Order: sequence, then C-alpha cells, then structure tokens
Amino acid sequence: MSSVLVVGSVALDNIKTPKEDHKNLLGGSASYSSVAAGFFAPTKMVGVIGEDFPKEYVELFNSKNVDTEGLVTEKGKTFTWSGEYEINMNNRKTISVDLNVFETFMPHLPASYRSTPYILLANIAPSLQSHVLSQIDSPKFIIADTMDLWIQIAKDDLHKLVKQVDMLILNDSEARDFTGLDNIIKAGHEIMKMGPRYVVIKKGEHGAILFGKEGYFLAPAFPLDEVKDPTGAGDCFAGGLMGYLAQADKHDFETLKKAVIHGTVVASYNVEAFSMRRLKEITIQDISHRANLIKTYSSF
Amino acid sequence: MSSVLVVGSVALDNIKTPKEDHKNLLGGSASYSSVAAGFFAPTKMVGVIGEDFPKEYVELFNSKNVDTEGLVTEKGKTFTWSGEYEINMNNRKTISVDLNVFETFMPHLPASYRSTPYILLANIAPSLQSHVLSQIDSPKFIIADTMDLWIQIAKDDLHKLVKQVDMLILNDSEARDFTGLDNIIKAGHEIMKMGPRYVVIKKGEHGAILFGKEGYFLAPAFPLDEVKDPTGAGDCFAGGLMGYLAQADKHDFETLKKAVIHGTVVASYNVEAFSMRRLKEITIQDISHRANLIKTYSSF
Repeated sequence: MSSVLVVGSVALDNIKTPKEDHKNLLGGSASYSSVAAGFFAPTKMVGVIGEDFPKEYVELFNSKNVDTEGLVTEKGKTFTWSGEYEINMNNRKTISVDLNVFETFMPHLPASYRSTPYILLANIAPSLQSHVLSQIDSPKFIIADTMDLWIQIAKDDLHKLVKQVDMLILNDSEARDFTGLDNIIKAGHEIMKMGPRYVVIKKGEHGAILFGKEGYFLAPAFPLDEVKDPTGAGDCFAGGLMGYLAQADKHDFETLKKAVIHGTVVASYNVEAFSMRRLKEITIQDISHRANLIKTYSSF
Repeated sequence: MSSVLVVGSVALDNIKTPKEDHKNLLGGSASYSSVAAGFFAPTKMVGVIGEDFPKEYVELFNSKNVDTEGLVTEKGKTFTWSGEYEINMNNRKTISVDLNVFETFMPHLPASYRSTPYILLANIAPSLQSHVLSQIDSPKFIIADTMDLWIQIAKDDLHKLVKQVDMLILNDSEARDFTGLDNIIKAGHEIMKMGPRYVVIKKGEHGAILFGKEGYFLAPAFPLDEVKDPTGAGDCFAGGLMGYLAQADKHDFETLKKAVIHGTVVASYNVEAFSMRRLKEITIQDISHRANLIKTYSSF
C-alpha cells in the first residue's frame, strides 16, 4: 500500500439537470478525484477554498481517507461552477464560472506531501500541474487529466506537461482536438508519441481505451439504466484508477487494466446521484462487487 | 456443424467517401450477411437480382460457402443504392435508391431451404421477414436485423415480427427510436419485453451490448486505425454472429457471447476496404486471430 497526491480544483457547484436543480454542491476535480482515490489508498489533497467553504465538506474528505493539510483557505469565496445538462445527459453547458480564490491559486506542497509516490494531476491549468511536479521528489507514477479548455487556450503548456507524465487521461473529443485526428485509435498512438507511456481515452457510456506499448485495454462502462448527474465522472475515473495503483503499489500493464476497471466502477456509482451523495454511502466491497460484474459481463 | 439461411437485399452499390468513389459494387444486406456467415457454416441465400447482376458476384457467393439456389433472377435491373459518407465515416447520406426488381420481391423458399435450423432475417421490410418465417420448418434460432426506416414506416409489422424471433439486432439510435427511451440499457430491456429472448444493440466503433435474462455481454469493437468504407458492417456482424452459432450448433449465452465477438471481427475486416474486397481475401484463421486479440485486449 502506497499513497496518492491529488492536485486540482475544489468547487461549489450549481447543477441543473432536466429533472433536478441543486446549489452549493461539493464539486471540483480534486474533490472527486481525492474521494475516489481514498477508497483504495491514503490520499493527500492540494487545493484552495474560500472562507465560505462548508466545514462538513472538509469533514467528508477526512472521513474518506483524504488528508487536507494541503487544502488552503484563502480570503474570499470558493471557486463556483454553474452548469446545466441536456436531456440525454451527454451535453453539458457551462452557465457561469466564478474563479474567486482559484484565480490566484498557486499550489504549494506541504513538506509531508513532497515524497508521495503516486501523483494525480487532476484537471486544472497545465501550468499549475507542471508547477506541482517541480515540487515532487522521486515519484513512481504520474497521471495528468485534462479537458478541452486547456487544449484550446494552453496547448503549448499541455505539450510541455505531457512530456513529464507517465499517463495522460482525456476524453474522445479532446483526443481528436488535441491531435487533429478523427480516428481515436490513431489519436491515442499520436499522443503516446508526445511523451506519455500510457494514454487513456475516455468515451463516457462507451467505456475507455488504455493505450500502451504493451497493446490495448478495451474497458467497457458499467451498464447503468439511469444517470442522475454526470458531474465528476471523469475525475472519479482518474482518482479510482490512481488509488488502485497506489494500493497495489505497482503500475505494470496488468495492474493498469485493473486500475482502469476500478476507476470505471467508482465513476459508475458517482453518476447515480448528485455531488458525492453516492460516494458517501459506498464501500470498497461495493466497488469490488461491480468490478467483478464487469468481469462477468466482458468475459467470453 | 449446422447451416444458415439468410434472406435480405442484394444490391449494386454506388459509394462515395471523402477519399474514394466506386460504382456497381456488390452490396445488400443478404450479400454481406451470407458471405460473413459462410466463413463458419454452409449458408443458403434468399434474394432477388436483375438481369444486369454480374456473374462474378454470384461466383463470389458460391466460392464463399453460399448456396444461391434461392437467389432469383427477375426481368429488369438489380436494386441499386447510392450513398455518401461524411468525413468521420459515421454519418451516411442516401443519395438515391432504385428498387427495380426489389420492388415486387416476395421471398419464396426452395424446398431444400425450408428445414434450415439457423434463420437470419437480414435487413429488409419486416413484412417480408415474417413471410419467410411462415415458410420455415422447426427452426432452432431466429435472428432479425432491422433499421431506422422500418421503425419509422413499418413499426406495427416490426412489433409483430419481434414476437416471433429469438434475437433482434439494431443499432443504438434505432433502439432509442423504437422504444422512445434515451438510455440504451433501459431500451434493451424494453425490447426484450416485446418478445425476443435476446437483443443486441450495436454501437459502431464502440462495440455492442448483448442483452439476455442471463445478464449482459459488453463486447468491444476491434480497434482499427482506419475505416475505408463502413457499408455492410452491421450485416457482416449479424452474419458472422449467426454463422458462428450454426457452426457450434448451439445458442446458450456463452456461445452467444463468442458469436458476438466473431461477428464483430468479420465486420472489422469488412470496413477495411470497399464492398467485399477484404472479405474475399481473409480466411477463418484471420478471423480467429482477431477474436483472440479482442480477448487479450479485453481481459483483466
């Protein structure tokens, strides 16, 4: 058993779906990724919150195996994201973004964090992700997650970052944007040429593809007949994946495959309710149960 | 080893992709499905052609384990489909359809066909698919393939048909249209309630989901870094699936899973070239090779 460091955003989310509307939910890439990783291994979180950030959210992190020494409170309000999902839950519209304390965020790692072996750079600006890497001593495995925004406005920073990481995670449309290639199999190989030994292309309800020089791993999604709120699914995927690696304390291709499945499972639970309501309830046994079901559903 | 009966369309296709443009290609649902099934088991084909149908296409069928006693030549021209694919190869536009001899097609089974155990009703009007079933003696397993057109213009006929078949195959958008449900897991279960014991929802490059009371089988697609012409992929999938069942001469859930994989593989070869150019070249050993690769790529 090793441990995970997660850096990313911590947010208060206002989310509207065709059926429900909720405000001031716990959100952000570091929040979801850390809680997801915490199911598997001790997780250290780096982020910034404002003075309005509810104490119970910090308590939730701590109750979920997440060390919040690196979660800094600054004067002002917490980063807020307001978004709306269309009927099919695939298309998301950002209604507003209030950066607040996040605007000047410059992640500084506490001394106790610097030798963490498994580093998850959850979705934030690639320059901040690189800044975290510069403070790390002898990491064992580094994953960066990213999103369309950085491909559009910070492509050079992203190119620099991907040379320093072991794995890049992004979704299918982002992989197409990043490479200019329409075929995602081609796109995955192209991204490997940019630096990372491994690439994971997420395809939402269609699962994910892990690319490595060892070959492919074609991971299905867990079949769900209802999705309540897709927010944080990708962050949970990355967090669960990295948590699994830290728990196993290895990162060979066979372990990476199992890690992808466990990330998939955490994400599948997460989308069953708003914010972290479902993650609050579940245990590692629930996660193992669905991982075994995926094995049954995909073996032949 | 048992045998397969395939009924469907036989066509001359004019196909345009962003890179190529070809005319008078061998096409049609029965053509693709029969050649795909023929890799695994003797296949009897039912269809209609015009006097203009090239002899070498009939010879191709015969060289590929396909019995053409039920392929009737009528006065006039062969059914012709002209279509165009957009750059991503997912969106297809029909430019023209000339039904010709297909307009009055009423499939009549030769006596030697009537006791075929494995019946594949490839994509044609559901009323014709039902008409074929009325001429069959004690079938072991019946599969119907369908398409959006019939859901739109012959929904009642399709509802009647699905009560008589063991498996319905359709793609994800068709499953949504047919059920009015956006979630395809829900849609698959809803279609099972309409009659068929098994449903397969095809998702193109994302694979396919087999639904049965035994559970799910989540089949990946074979990873391809280039698609030259997607025409006939669904027909090859259905044909390969049914051919595999006939070869095994059983249809339990474990055999169905393997059949889905083998259908997937035949489809993956088919899209690598226009018309049947790739299917002409490959052997059952090539098919086994890719089926084993999919096993490697999806095991964990």
